[in-house]
Amino acid sequence: MKVKREALKNAAIEILKGFQATDSEAGLVAECLVRADMRGIDTHGVHFLTLLSSRVESRMIQIPTKVEVIRDEDATALLDGGNGLGQVAAHRAMEMCIGKARKFGTGSVAVRNTNHIGILAFYSSDMAERGLAGIVMCNGAASMSPWGGAEPFFGTNPISIAIPGDTGEPVVLDMSSSVVARGKIRRAERMKEAIPAGWAFDANGNPTTDPSEAMKGTLMPIGGPKGYGLALMVDVLAGLLSGSQFGPHVKTFHQPLDRQASGSS
Amino acid sequence: MKVKREALKNAAIEILKGFQATDSEAGLVAECLVRADMRGIDTHGVHFLTLLSSRVESRMIQIPTKVEVIRDEDATALLDGGNGLGQVAAHRAMEMCIGKARKFGTGSVAVRNTNHIGILAFYSSDMAERGLAGIVMCNGAASMSPWGGAEPFFGTNPISIAIPGDTGEPVVLDMSSSVVARGKIRRAERMKEAIPAGWAFDANGNPTTDPSEAMKGTLMPIGGPKGYGLALMVDVLAGLLSGSQFGPHVKTFHQPLDRQASGSS
Repeated sequence: MKVKREALKNAAIEILKGFQATDSEAGLVAECLVRADMRGIDTHGVHFLTLLSSRVESRMIQIPTKVEVIRDEDATALLDGGNGLGQVAAHRAMEMCIGKARKFGTGSVAVRNTNHIGILAFYSSDMAERGLAGIVMCNGAASMSPWGGAEPFFGTNPISIAIPGDTGEPVVLDMSSSVVARGKIRRAERMKEAIPAGWAFDANGNPTTDPSEAMKGTLMPIGGPKGYGLALMVDVLAGLLSGSQFGPHVKTFHQPLDRQASGSS
Repeated sequence: MKVKREALKNAAIEILKGFQATDSEAGLVAECLVRADMRGIDTHGVHFLTLLSSRVESRMIQIPTKVEVIRDEDATALLDGGNGLGQVAAHRAMEMCIGKARKFGTGSVAVRNTNHIGILAFYSSDMAERGLAGIVMCNGAASMSPWGGAEPFFGTNPISIAIPGDTGEPVVLDMSSSVVARGKIRRAERMKEAIPAGWAFDANGNPTTDPSEAMKGTLMPIGGPKGYGLALMVDVLAGLLSGSQFGPHVKTFHQPLDRQASGSS
């Protein structure tokens, strides 16, 4: 089934308005989700609205989103996302960061107390399209262990870097620090297919090609200890430094609703 | 053979003075090299003086090093390393960056027209020991191809991130964007041992476990396209943005002396 971009976006906007999002919030989040689908990142596309729905029903998230500026000094700032829509807080941080970079040459803005912000490329590309090099990081729910360990501790903590391109189209990197996303292992389990070596560890920290064992274990970081190091640094810079949740304390949108997600960006 | 840290450093200082380095240059570069040896990164240790020696004899490098400030505005700056000792230019950039971060909250300084700067952890750790999060990047001579290609284009372009630790010791990441350094393949070739799968491609871009074929080919980036993406972004941010050499134009210290190295940081 093919759906026109605008039709999908309008449907997402209506759903978000049903969650009490303001017009501008709904437009922003819908655009972020549709762009993810168009980049082929289904996991971060409009499908996300079904996960959001259960959080809205359980009153785990505050909509409309009230972003508060905790600190704003020269080239840096810290925002509190008010436990609202992650995209709204992250977009506000990006706008502040652009202002700071234009004024001081570079800027850095952190966000705490927010939720899933969607694909990082949404923000980094926007910066690059406006003539700036954009770097975005975000921690996530635990699915990788410190190298040599077996228990999940770090998320697949992604990094995105975008650079203005000569023709207007930016050059964009948007990657997690794991070899693959957990979704690919979930799919293999459903299809009863083995997964390639080098994707995951079982619950004892041994490499496995059995997707069911992998789902009980952890994801392999890229380059072994290197990806672990990247995930650690993203967790410190995006999580600890902003006063957000970090390590195994970050909750996922894909699990039972026992706690707010508290992602960060 | 064990050598005391101070004895090794003093020997390095004397050699550097023989290359016309000033006292402060010699002390800085010697400290950088000895610290690399102490971290177990022999390739960036005092062994480097033999490579430097041939460049000094061929007058390919300008010592004493004359660093020039090309641009200095608020939180950013650009330095010209005067084709001198890379460590001297990189250290000056780090000091400026610390000053900017203390004044504006964050800072970014680029260097062009310089040479091998040694291990990046030397600079990032220094920043972290002084209470700041330090991020250092550097491009290098071509040894990896764009993902799916066969010709070397990017260096193993490393990134280092260091964070102040609670007890004074910083938490330090210092990693290249390739799975292993070329030196490990060179050693396997010497020992006539096969290399593990996942380290390198042959000259046709096919994975190989033969170190001689690998030496004619390219290194594998971490996480396949991800490490390629990281190397690309480091090349843009540390190379292109500073006006340094980039991609296959960056020359190595390990090859014949047909051109200055023009690394960047």
